[in-house]
Amino acid sequence: MGKTIKLGLLGSGTVGSGVVKVLEMNRREITERVGRPLELKKVLVRDTGKKRPFLEGKGIEITDDINAILQDPDIDIVIELMGGLHPAREYMLRAMEAGKHVVTANKDVVAQFGQDMFDTSEKQDVDFLFEASVGGGIPIIAPLKQCLTANRITEIMGIVNGTTNYMLTKMSEDGCDYATVLKEAQDKGYAEANPSADVDGLDAARKAAILASLAFNTRVQLEDVSVEGITKITPEDIEYATDLGYVIKLLAVGKDSEADGVDVRVHPVFLPKSHPLASVNGVFNAIFVRGNAIGEAMFYGQGAGSLPTASAVVSDVIDVARDIIQGKFGRVGCTCYEQKRLCPLEKTVSSYYVRLLVDDKPGVLGVIATAFGDAGVSLKSVIQTSLKVTDHAEIVAITHPVQHAKIEEALAVLKDLPVVDEIRNMIRVDNERG
Amino acid sequence: MGKTIKLGLLGSGTVGSGVVKVLEMNRREITERVGRPLELKKVLVRDTGKKRPFLEGKGIEITDDINAILQDPDIDIVIELMGGLHPAREYMLRAMEAGKHVVTANKDVVAQFGQDMFDTSEKQDVDFLFEASVGGGIPIIAPLKQCLTANRITEIMGIVNGTTNYMLTKMSEDGCDYATVLKEAQDKGYAEANPSADVDGLDAARKAAILASLAFNTRVQLEDVSVEGITKITPEDIEYATDLGYVIKLLAVGKDSEADGVDVRVHPVFLPKSHPLASVNGVFNAIFVRGNAIGEAMFYGQGAGSLPTASAVVSDVIDVARDIIQGKFGRVGCTCYEQKRLCPLEKTVSSYYVRLLVDDKPGVLGVIATAFGDAGVSLKSVIQTSLKVTDHAEIVAITHPVQHAKIEEALAVLKDLPVVDEIRNMIRVDNERG
Repeated sequence: MGKTIKLGLLGSGTVGSGVVKVLEMNRREITERVGRPLELKKVLVRDTGKKRPFLEGKGIEITDDINAILQDPDIDIVIELMGGLHPAREYMLRAMEAGKHVVTANKDVVAQFGQDMFDTSEKQDVDFLFEASVGGGIPIIAPLKQCLTANRITEIMGIVNGTTNYMLTKMSEDGCDYATVLKEAQDKGYAEANPSADVDGLDAARKAAILASLAFNTRVQLEDVSVEGITKITPEDIEYATDLGYVIKLLAVGKDSEADGVDVRVHPVFLPKSHPLASVNGVFNAIFVRGNAIGEAMFYGQGAGSLPTASAVVSDVIDVARDIIQGKFGRVGCTCYEQKRLCPLEKTVSSYYVRLLVDDKPGVLGVIATAFGDAGVSLKSVIQTSLKVTDHAEIVAITHPVQHAKIEEALAVLKDLPVVDEIRNMIRVDNERG
Repeated sequence: MGKTIKLGLLGSGTVGSGVVKVLEMNRREITERVGRPLELKKVLVRDTGKKRPFLEGKGIEITDDINAILQDPDIDIVIELMGGLHPAREYMLRAMEAGKHVVTANKDVVAQFGQDMFDTSEKQDVDFLFEASVGGGIPIIAPLKQCLTANRITEIMGIVNGTTNYMLTKMSEDGCDYATVLKEAQDKGYAEANPSADVDGLDAARKAAILASLAFNTRVQLEDVSVEGITKITPEDIEYATDLGYVIKLLAVGKDSEADGVDVRVHPVFLPKSHPLASVNGVFNAIFVRGNAIGEAMFYGQGAGSLPTASAVVSDVIDVARDIIQGKFGRVGCTCYEQKRLCPLEKTVSSYYVRLLVDDKPGVLGVIATAFGDAGVSLKSVIQTSLKVTDHAEIVAITHPVQHAKIEEALAVLKDLPVVDEIRNMIRVDNERG
């Protein structure tokens, strides 16, 4: 058995402690699979005085000096789990410049500075792996770079944010409203005190950019992703969805069509109950892929958490360690071979659910349906529900597929109709599957 | 761009034609991803006179002489899609001995002669890849060899036979019986005229052996797998399953526990409706994995068919082509690092569904329940249904987890009770998840 492969870890939070635990509890299996032992030599922390029982008594050096790791010639692989853009980006670049391989779970850096990372890893002939940056433990980066390469991928749809999926699942199961379920998620530690990154869709948007870049072999930046969160979803929307045979999910959606270009978005979607993603509940994540050879495929698992995310991180470390033994790196580096044009939001096509508050009197449904028709929007179904206590009714329309620009135009007209009091919501509907 | 990488294909059936189609329709993407063009140079067929429109006019040489491929120094990669043990095994060994890399979809050879294949590929320093041998297009072999390596995998459960899954789905949806649904599957081309390999579980057993070998890093042979098919499943069993909140699936199951060893089986299972595998219907396949870091993960897609299976084959070919360019082969070869002991069937533990035909008179349920108890089998629930037209009743018992030997003992006692007319079925119940 050859020389021990030595690791340096940046960050000792939730995932960092998971990595330490996985390296320890599966030491025998990992050593067999690599062919050599792995040893965690040093951990970078912010405050060396803080108690960290999971690091004690293991001969691991704890340091608050990044140079103690970057300048240690013994360390082969740097694991970056600090999160955030800076200084994580700089530390990873410096690690690669020092000839070290890098494994990270950092979606922010990969989404925003992926190109820098790939360029540096190629120039330095070192590995840069980031499986844990999307979908926690779920293998999705490696499958896209390797197992699905025979395909032209036309669509990728993911439930990639566990917090919002937990919240939507709860709203759907218990009928409670957004504020209640947010409070509950915060109490359970699933949502941050400032929940914006999750509920406004930004976390999912970063992952969407990474997934779309890999799936479509073109660089998709965070600013290319159109984003809408879940804050406007009400119990009424969920009830209508249920009645109509759908569930509401926050999805990261990427599409690539030769005619229209690449289109990447994050927004809530009415998903038919029969869709494989529809039964992905609670904090679970899943990524659904459509390719022109494989047809449909789905990858499912825990999208966050200490051990599941550590599973992806340590598996990447094992991959790098195998490369070290073979002496071959950067096997599949940057896969953005093309620069495909982007489809502007207005030109994207979808079916829509539109919920309107209207005057409760005869003929209103006809007025609404006519207005949609005049705007060139064809309707699949319309339901009218009297709200009884007031003199109002709700009208819910599901459209046939239509360009986003067209539905916006229709809503602008509807809003000004005397019988329409309020446009309460508009949510995309996925009816594309069989 | 470097030299074209040349391929030789053995077999021109369903999957072979899919490979030809995928190489053609995704030529641009594949060339980008490899960094060089791939060219299918020769195809081995049994009868060169037969019309094969998908091979015509493409400059592909058609031959019935294996040596034309094995002795062609131009051919870098041999794709074996003949199926069956012989001569597929010999051709693949000879290809590797001639310094060619091999990609195959052949579950029979991998399950039975995997060791030979790995030994030869290692000795010859060539790649031997077989993603398509289990789960058609679904990436599962590479994830097990690469993306989940941080885990000690404790359980793998798969719906890996589309024919039987289609049949069970149909029986469950339409309430029809085994014979009717088999005929329908045969009419649709989903089942063979001789359906034994599918319905008796042998096809699934080969895949179970492959999956368990990879998941548990120990050689599991076909003869180590205990096998039970779906021929005994009746509409009554399916109705009881539905009433009790389960679906019946034919599963390939592998478990690895430090205490009991490795246990691999194929048999029908009562699966709770909330289990991720429960909603995998029709010809879809899925593989569910439990690891001590990742928790639960699932891989879902089309388990058979021309293009889906070709997706896995061609993705493997791309992987080999990348290795050719890098000049490094056999990156992850045989992963059976240990020889773990097997858990004999009698010692395996499960809950069971038992359906008995009994005399319809007071006190019988008590007699049955007592007999179970005396045999050391604890019951979770018992239902008694009067069959009205006769003087018989059916008793359905769901047991708590119990050793297989114990349930067999209990049934031997029950069978001899005067009130018991027939033991109608015994099916395992999965209650292990949450």
